[in-house]
Amino acid sequence: MRQSMIDMVHQIQDEICEALRSIDGVEYRQDEWTREEGGGGRSRVFSGGEVFEKAGVNVSVVHGTLSPQAAQSMGGGHELQGKDLDFFATGISLVLHPHNPMAPTVHANYRYFERGEGKKDGSWWFGGGADLTPSYLFEDDAQHFHDVHKKACDLHAVADYSAFKKWCDEYFHIKHRGERRGLGGIFFDDLNGASKTECFEFVRDCARSFLPSYLPVLERRKDLPFTEQQKQWQQLRRGRYVEFNLVYDRGTKFGLTTNGRIESILMSLPLTSRWEYCHEVAEGSEEDLLLDVLREPRDWIIE
Amino acid sequence: MRQSMIDMVHQIQDEICEALRSIDGVEYRQDEWTREEGGGGRSRVFSGGEVFEKAGVNVSVVHGTLSPQAAQSMGGGHELQGKDLDFFATGISLVLHPHNPMAPTVHANYRYFERGEGKKDGSWWFGGGADLTPSYLFEDDAQHFHDVHKKACDLHAVADYSAFKKWCDEYFHIKHRGERRGLGGIFFDDLNGASKTECFEFVRDCARSFLPSYLPVLERRKDLPFTEQQKQWQQLRRGRYVEFNLVYDRGTKFGLTTNGRIESILMSLPLTSRWEYCHEVAEGSEEDLLLDVLREPRDWIIE
Repeated sequence: MRQSMIDMVHQIQDEICEALRSIDGVEYRQDEWTREEGGGGRSRVFSGGEVFEKAGVNVSVVHGTLSPQAAQSMGGGHELQGKDLDFFATGISLVLHPHNPMAPTVHANYRYFERGEGKKDGSWWFGGGADLTPSYLFEDDAQHFHDVHKKACDLHAVADYSAFKKWCDEYFHIKHRGERRGLGGIFFDDLNGASKTECFEFVRDCARSFLPSYLPVLERRKDLPFTEQQKQWQQLRRGRYVEFNLVYDRGTKFGLTTNGRIESILMSLPLTSRWEYCHEVAEGSEEDLLLDVLREPRDWIIE
Repeated sequence: MRQSMIDMVHQIQDEICEALRSIDGVEYRQDEWTREEGGGGRSRVFSGGEVFEKAGVNVSVVHGTLSPQAAQSMGGGHELQGKDLDFFATGISLVLHPHNPMAPTVHANYRYFERGEGKKDGSWWFGGGADLTPSYLFEDDAQHFHDVHKKACDLHAVADYSAFKKWCDEYFHIKHRGERRGLGGIFFDDLNGASKTECFEFVRDCARSFLPSYLPVLERRKDLPFTEQQKQWQQLRRGRYVEFNLVYDRGTKFGLTTNGRIESILMSLPLTSRWEYCHEVAEGSEEDLLLDVLREPRDWIIE
């Protein structure tokens, strides 16, 4: 399984970066890095292109020994010792921030984790998801993005779109603002309710769904006209993105406290962002319509 | 003591805002707010003026009952019950972000806290400090800022400039970057090593030192010429400011998790900020010189 997942995330990284390169008109910058404690990664970042303000696609394959603190939170109630403290983790993580405020930011992440030899109950799991963060609400974008992910879930007994959709809305909650970061998508963790192969096939199909879920949305929004005021609203929304990632996101917090590669962890932050004191939107405006759905998540599947 | 401190922070807020108004050429926006659990505050924010991108000066006077969690962390090892769970807190907090990248951002905060009736040992304390965060290093600015604060400390037996300077460098540490947020200043907490009056007089003198410590620095930097590239470096440094405040700052974290007034808590964030992937500075450049002192804090007092 380790090798299947490693191969898959690298292949998906290649496919996605190839697609982004042809859209963005620039080459990505690639950094291959190693981690002192074991393993490493391959980060690819687009900047200064036609479409993206900043876009990063990262894969990593790391291994090592869990710290006593990590072992406690990852032991599922069991006390881990000896070989059971070994861990292996691999995954792909991406965040794309387009220039055009009509085109949504998107994030996706798929990962596999093993403790020890990954044979005992609860000693391996998959996690991941994808979510869409627009500055302006286009209902057909939200419907399309959710629809593609629901179809991937519906093909696999181990997946439950409704539960994963709800989990996503709960996870990406900026509590101090009473807003979600975006329009959601799917989110799941600790997935091990079937064989490794069955779980892997679901996660692989999700990862393969990324381009079909996002590219059609990007294509129809990336060249729309916009005003300076709409660009500023996007910058304020970027500020909220920063608030979520630095205050709540588990992956970011984990990376910052465990000597991760800072530039790869904070690759998710937008190029630019803005905070205005007591910013208010006009009632019934396009900005207000977005806030409505960030405050009260909606269902996006049309039956 | 409660009333003396309340009067002092309001008077200092008036004095500082009066000075900023005459420099900035615009009126501040004032919001008086109340807190459901008891008390409230007066926030004043400058934006769109000649000198400041964003500048906020906030006072608050709040009271209530400590949550069991807060009581544990604030009880100093004692179990608090009944009236001892009451608390009272008042303070002034300010952050000024100038437009010009040659003019430093500055932060100051002075506060008084009481548990119960504030009569028992360890049931009251003062805290605070001031620190300077430039994008470009001007040694005479750092020397002046530190010198004014050292003079305030030296007048009071309860204060120790060297210890408070070190505390400041330790507190404003962006651990994941290996950098301090700025050039430091002073920082102290749990100050109660003398009578309430003696502690108050020290804190009052510190608060009164704010304008003399900062205005001469601002005056000589706010109209210096600068390039687009220097403005971008300022924006990157603003990004680091955001990282510190959202990831590490205790006041911000406390506010976000305890239903504080969000706009007053996040008033400290800059209007705009920037994150570039793997940004590097040229060796020996002005930007590099700043990074040197952020990585290895220096002494700024000339004997």
